[in-house]
Formats: sequence, C-alpha cells, structure tokens
Amino acid sequence: MRHHLLLRNIRPLGGDAVDMLCEGTRIAVIGANLAAPEGCAVEEGHGALLLPGLIEGHCHLDKALWGMPWWVNENPPHREARIANEKKLRRPLGKEPYRDARALAEAELANGTTRLRTHVDIDEECRLSHVEALLRLRADMADRLEIQLVAFPQSGIVRTPGAEGWLDEAMRMGCDVVGGIDPSVIDRDPVRHLDAVFRLAERHGKPVDIHLHEPHELGAFSLELMAERTRALGLQGRVTVSHGFCLGDVPAARGDQLLAMLAESGIAICTSAPAGSNVPPLERAAALGVTVFAGNDNIRDTWMPFGHPDMLERAMFVAMKNNLRSDRGLELAFGTVGAQAAKGAGFSDYGLAPGARADLVLVEAETLGHAVVERPVRRLVVAQGRVVARDGRLTA
Amino acid sequence: MRHHLLLRNIRPLGGDAVDMLCEGTRIAVIGANLAAPEGCAVEEGHGALLLPGLIEGHCHLDKALWGMPWWVNENPPHREARIANEKKLRRPLGKEPYRDARALAEAELANGTTRLRTHVDIDEECRLSHVEALLRLRADMADRLEIQLVAFPQSGIVRTPGAEGWLDEAMRMGCDVVGGIDPSVIDRDPVRHLDAVFRLAERHGKPVDIHLHEPHELGAFSLELMAERTRALGLQGRVTVSHGFCLGDVPAARGDQLLAMLAESGIAICTSAPAGSNVPPLERAAALGVTVFAGNDNIRDTWMPFGHPDMLERAMFVAMKNNLRSDRGLELAFGTVGAQAAKGAGFSDYGLAPGARADLVLVEAETLGHAVVERPVRRLVVAQGRVVARDGRLTA
Repeated sequence: MRHHLLLRNIRPLGGDAVDMLCEGTRIAVIGANLAAPEGCAVEEGHGALLLPGLIEGHCHLDKALWGMPWWVNENPPHREARIANEKKLRRPLGKEPYRDARALAEAELANGTTRLRTHVDIDEECRLSHVEALLRLRADMADRLEIQLVAFPQSGIVRTPGAEGWLDEAMRMGCDVVGGIDPSVIDRDPVRHLDAVFRLAERHGKPVDIHLHEPHELGAFSLELMAERTRALGLQGRVTVSHGFCLGDVPAARGDQLLAMLAESGIAICTSAPAGSNVPPLERAAALGVTVFAGNDNIRDTWMPFGHPDMLERAMFVAMKNNLRSDRGLELAFGTVGAQAAKGAGFSDYGLAPGARADLVLVEAETLGHAVVERPVRRLVVAQGRVVARDGRLTA
Repeated sequence: MRHHLLLRNIRPLGGDAVDMLCEGTRIAVIGANLAAPEGCAVEEGHGALLLPGLIEGHCHLDKALWGMPWWVNENPPHREARIANEKKLRRPLGKEPYRDARALAEAELANGTTRLRTHVDIDEECRLSHVEALLRLRADMADRLEIQLVAFPQSGIVRTPGAEGWLDEAMRMGCDVVGGIDPSVIDRDPVRHLDAVFRLAERHGKPVDIHLHEPHELGAFSLELMAERTRALGLQGRVTVSHGFCLGDVPAARGDQLLAMLAESGIAICTSAPAGSNVPPLERAAALGVTVFAGNDNIRDTWMPFGHPDMLERAMFVAMKNNLRSDRGLELAFGTVGAQAAKGAGFSDYGLAPGARADLVLVEAETLGHAVVERPVRRLVVAQGRVVARDGRLTA
C-alpha cells in the first residue's frame, strides 16, 4: 500500500487555509476538511504558509567546507589565483568530496531544498574522482533530494590536456548537464571552448550550463556565440548561462538587445545576485521573456566565506540586489527559487497542484514576501511525500 | 558598593582566553584566573568570542513597524513618493513613535547593540512629536543603550515652511546631531539647505549627519559644499555623510579625489551598503584615511521590507557589497560596526581595554571573520557592566 500524508490547515503560497492529501510521492487532493485514509500520517499546519520544495539552481557541493572548523581564509583577489588556491588546499584541508558534499546537501534539504543542480569539478588534479563521489551521492539521496550533476571544467577545456575526454567520460557515467566556463578569459579561445561544450551536449543529448563571469562586451560576445550554437543545434530551452555579469555591465539598451537574444534562443540565466557585482536585471529579463533562476553558488568554501544553504535567503539576496521592495517584487524574487528554477533547470512535476511531486515546505509567515524577508526556520519539509525535516533539522 | 561582573574564559576579538572583571559600568581588569570580589556576579564564557558592544550608526527607530503584523507593501519606486507614502500611512498603520521605536531599540539591544544613532523625522505633519517620543526613549533606556538623536528634516528644510524653526527647537530640546537630506534633489537649493544645517550646528555646538542619496556629480557637488562648510566652521571630525552613493557612481580617480577631500575635511561616511546601489568603496576609503561606519538604515518599515536589527548582519552586508572575502577583509567590515563607528559617530570610552565602558557581546565563533559570516545568536550581552540579554533575548 502506498503511503499517505495529510497536511491540515495550511495556506498554499499564502492563500486561504486548506488541507492537502499526498499519496505516494505525489500531491493527490487539495480541499477543505479532507478525510485521512486509514494509516495516513497527519500533520497539523496551524495555518502556516506552504511552499513548494525550494530549488537550488547553482551550487558546488564538492567544494564545500560546510561543517568543518572555520578556515582562516586568505582568499586571493583574482579568479585564476582562486582556482590554483583551491587545488593547492584540497589535501591540506582534508577534503573528501562525498562526505563534504553530503554534509552540504543535507543542510540544503533541512532548509527545504528538494531539487538541486551542482557543478562538479573536473580538472587535471581531481579528474573524475569528484564525479564518482557525486554520482554516488545522487543515488544515495534520490528518494529525498533530486540532484543534477553538471560536469564542470573549472580549469578550462582547451588549455587542459585531457579535459574534453574526461568530460565525455563524465557524461557517459551519468552526469546530467555539460558545463563550461569563461571561454575567453579561462580558455583564451572562445570558439574552441564553446564548440567542445556544445559538441558534448549534442553527442550525449544533454543540456548545457556555462559559467560566464566575463565582463562587459567580452561577456556579451560569449553570449552571442552561445546563442548561435544553441539555435544551430536546436537546444532552445536547454541552455543556461550562470552569472552573466556582463548583462549588468553594459548600457541598458545593449542589455535589452542581449536579453531579447537570450529569450529568442531559449537561454536561461542562473544568478546568485552577488552584492558586489553587476548582475542581470531581474525585472527587465522577466519582462523580455528570459527565464531567470537562482543559486547559492559557493557556500563557505575556499572561494567564499559567506553563504547558507538556504534558498529563501538567496531569494532575499536576489530581491535586495534588484532593489525589489514591494510584495510583488518579493514574489518575483521567490520565483527564482521556485517556478522559474523548475523551468530553467528542467525539474519536472513542480508545484502545488494535484499530480505534482509532493515536495513541500511549511513556514511561519503571513505572505510569500514575508517568508522571503524573514526566512523562518522550516517547520516541516516533505520530500516525495514523506516528512524529511522538522524545525530546521533532518528527521532520523 | 558598586556592582561587579566577572567573565571567565572569554576570547577578546578571538585572541587567547582570559578573564575580564567589570566594576560599575567599566572594564576594570583583564587577565588570567582573576579572583571574584565578594558578591560579584560570574559568567562562564567557555572560550566564546568576546566583542565590544556593537554600534548602530544609522537607523530610523521612529519609522519602525517592527513587531507589527506583516504589511503588504506597495512600495512606490521613487524617494519623493516614498516620503509621501509614509506620511499617508502613519495613521492607518496605527504608528506610535515611542512604542514602535522602543520595540526596535530593544531588538537591537538583544542583538548586542549598545550604542545607536537614530534619525528622527521632523516634518509639517509630525512636527516635534517624534522628537518628544524619542527623547523620552533615550532617557528611559540610558542605562542600557546609548542613543544619539539626529533631528532629521525628511521632507526638506527650504521647501517646508517652519522646518528650520522646528529643527532649532529640536536641538534646544536636546537632540544630539543636526540632520539634513539631499540638498539639491529634495530641497532644490543646495546652498540654502546646507547653510541652514551648518548654521544650526554652529548655533548649538553639535555635529552634523546629512543623508546624501544624490547620484554621480550632483552628489559630488553636495560633498564639495559640505567640505567647504565643515572646514570654514572648524567642524572637522564632527560631520558625517550618510549613504554617499555618488562615491560609488563616479570613476575611480574622481572618487579618490573626493575621498581625499573628505579625509582632509574630517568628514566620515556612514553606509548601509545596499546591494542594489553603488556605494562608497570601503577599502579605498580606509586607505585614504576616511572613517567609514555602518548602519542598518530602514528596517522593516514603509521604506524597506528587509532588515534585521543586527549589526553583525550589517557588517556581513558591508563585506559582501565590498567583495571582502578574506578574514582580513571581514575584520575591516567588522570595524564599521566597531571602532570606526565609535570614532565616526563620536561614542566615547569604546573598546575592550580597562577603563572602557563595559559594553560586551559574547558569541560562539572561532574568529571575528567567523562571527561576521555566521552572525551567531548573542549568548550574552552586557551593557554598562550588567547582563541585559541572554541567547538573543532581553533578561527580565
């Protein structure tokens, strides 16, 4: 017999109080005064706000130092030095990809993340060892947390002998998405880098997610090359540009032109909305039809001391960065960890309607905007129809 | 007999574990294995990190909706509309300046703020009623929280008949600082606005704190006018520009020129480091000798849905906005709610040395940087030698 779970007196997205019956891994019925089937677990909601399971659109589980003692960080100021710094520190810090990734993934789950896209380092030092560890993690947590693995060439493809082969092998092993990074700045050869990424995507029939930190018109040029390749291969709706700081660097009219190109090419944007960088403008992107979703990016690792594995906090940062102060604006920001993330990253069966996967988060908040601003402790997290966390902690 | 308080096994600013004896309102002795005088209260620190009481450099206690139900906010997009919006909403929202300011001030104290500068609205609608309420609050909390009141002409001086007289009266009633705001954008007359502010400062022998949101070279022009008046009146070290977004708008070389002018004129900067605006660059300002301190600005009011009355969180936002990722950078950010704030806002007897006021905060953290990033619950808050909060809550 399939397990049942009845949530009583909950307010989906802040609407009127209702009951919700889950059957197996799905939402079955939403309505007033639902009867509990025999043997059904019942949770009293006390009128709390119900959210769909939160979506982490961009993180680096394998880089995590989460749960380790504080590491006194002499973070170098440039990206290439940070790449070298990380490789140098993996051993002295005692990094173990499976253990460290699991600690962070469980912390995400305890905060209501039920779907997650992580980039996984592939370089000449770790080769496929992180991929192997994360594939195991994806399988071990599959009944609670849906994990997408991006095969991520952190140190480049063209300039790293063997990298394209490792990426190919990673996709064969089961990675979900082909990654890339700064085709000009890191690999010094935008065409060969992007050709390699899109060749792998075509060969394996998988989507693409490319880190793009490149500034101003250099980044814009990379976006144009990505759009050409996306359209040529019919990959519309399956390509993401992560960060895309250049979209916040260029003048507004040029930004609109690039956003229109992304919309037409079906390229989504994933942002962590860092306070200290220019970022793609959320309201403008939404108005022009570009899907924008959010990710925490680096959390407490050799790259970044900041961060919590909490997608409500990330939605707040998105709202703060875009200066969205009205409740309507806060709802737009919530979308970047909700419906827009499901669409952009391709997580199916998302939402709070019957038939959707029963991934649910219950918080003490009056409205969606209030939840984003207050980021209350997650009173209950349900994943695939079962309670997995209470009051911010995983259940046993 | 004066009260004594002995803190055992605490790590000042993350250094080695010591004991600290407070006598009356002051720190008396710091050392190993101190003996407790008869009748002395003793707190066991268990090696926790000890910070000086945190400093809130810029808030608006009288605007607070803290502790009220969530207000669905249709925040208009421009500053002048927000000013009108706020006046329109004071009555329907049931605002009571003393009660609302007290709720927020107590929440600040529970999070370790022991000194606080608040701007207090003076306009044609509220006139001196907010000043009266906040003077009473300042007196009522004087043994726990040192409050500075800035007489703040939110709706301008030149264009608001009677405003200069109310400001004059507010200073006579006991306000600590003369406020001002956007001399060109709000009052449409930079010279007459600034002349009024500096005239009041001279007449009452009090410092100045001027809100400056004006962009780019318009803001830079206001800074130049402020610097001229500061030097002419010998007010070096007693003038603050709050926000100063223009310092982040102009090219770096022009910014350096303006920062050098502020340093030479002894004008400090107070920032809330909003993610969505250009802000004064902290490292550059510090290098050029400008005092920069931090404030939460609007917290959960008609202006802003965001914010917590937590100066460690604000220090984190300062670090994030300035992209300060190393422990050294996090310490620089902490200074904006610590020593730099004491200097910039003129709070005396600050610090962790014998003779300083015994305003102390104990948190579970390994280093100062860790405390900024983690913002742990305040285990203990001591104000003027007495325990006032435990585990984030005020003691009875």
